[in-house]
Amino acid sequence: MKLSGGVEWALHCCVVLTTATEPVPAARLAELHDVSGSYLAKQLQALSRAGLVTSVQGKAGGYVLTRAPELITILDVVTAVDGAQPAFVCTEIRQRGPLAAPQEACTRPCPIARAMAGADAAWRAALQAISVADLARGVDEDYGPSALAGIRTWLSPTDGDSAIVEQG
Amino acid sequence: MKLSGGVEWALHCCVVLTTATEPVPAARLAELHDVSGSYLAKQLQALSRAGLVTSVQGKAGGYVLTRAPELITILDVVTAVDGAQPAFVCTEIRQRGPLAAPQEACTRPCPIARAMAGADAAWRAALQAISVADLARGVDEDYGPSALAGIRTWLSPTDGDSAIVEQG
Repeated sequence: MKLSGGVEWALHCCVVLTTATEPVPAARLAELHDVSGSYLAKQLQALSRAGLVTSVQGKAGGYVLTRAPELITILDVVTAVDGAQPAFVCTEIRQRGPLAAPQEACTRPCPIARAMAGADAAWRAALQAISVADLARGVDEDYGPSALAGIRTWLSPTDGDSAIVEQG
Repeated sequence: MKLSGGVEWALHCCVVLTTATEPVPAARLAELHDVSGSYLAKQLQALSRAGLVTSVQGKAGGYVLTRAPELITILDVVTAVDGAQPAFVCTEIRQRGPLAAPQEACTRPCPIARAMAGADAAWRAALQAISVADLARGVDEDYGPSALAGIRTWLSPTDGDSAIVEQG
């Protein structure tokens, strides 16, 4: 079982966007993360399609979160990038072969499918319990407030009057 | 995120083997499930490598579970077929780019990796809490004892004196 690699990049972008004071161009996010702009753009588009970020147009344009980071869960980001499909897909093996269960006796998922669905629900519940704001708080706890503040400064437009410089 | 399709077949085989009174040839399991013998053999070999089933040689040979089905969890089967690798693999994005965290400051997993590991642990715990015996009990509960008993009869050697016929 493997999650799409894009999930990790998308989560990092969301955490970074919690600290930005202005829209952040995709190219700037790619530069910060030292990753291909086209690859990161794909993840940002997935976040945008899911309504988690939006692209502000114009000279000072770029990506912003569409709502407070407390209201964006890890599950939201995972689903945006990796889809909502559960890890286990039942193909109704019980309905195959010489002793197949008749279709009308299979209205309820089989015990295997129920067990796998239960594990999937536990996984999703764990991801839904943690928000992007929690992740940003975790960065502050691990590295002190200067880490995200440093990113905020680095992201700020550098053209004189609009530059915002903060000390960590 | 997607589990290997082999997981479903392997789980069905394990449940079937709980009811068998004799070793079951791979070809017989394939026939019961109406699936390609070579494909199912691959899943049985994975179960065998993980020590969950063993192949008894000889004329009346075939696969048997190596221990009581109460002692084989769904997680055992999933790990045997799909591997033990967690769904999320951290690539240390925090150590990239112009504001990279120095390696010596990254001894602890980052908040994102910790959150994903927590969800993975919840998923594994759910799969570890349910045994193959529980699954077989679930089939009995759903379909009555005649379903697995019917499979047991069907699997039994048909050569006269070794045939075991039970009523469900």
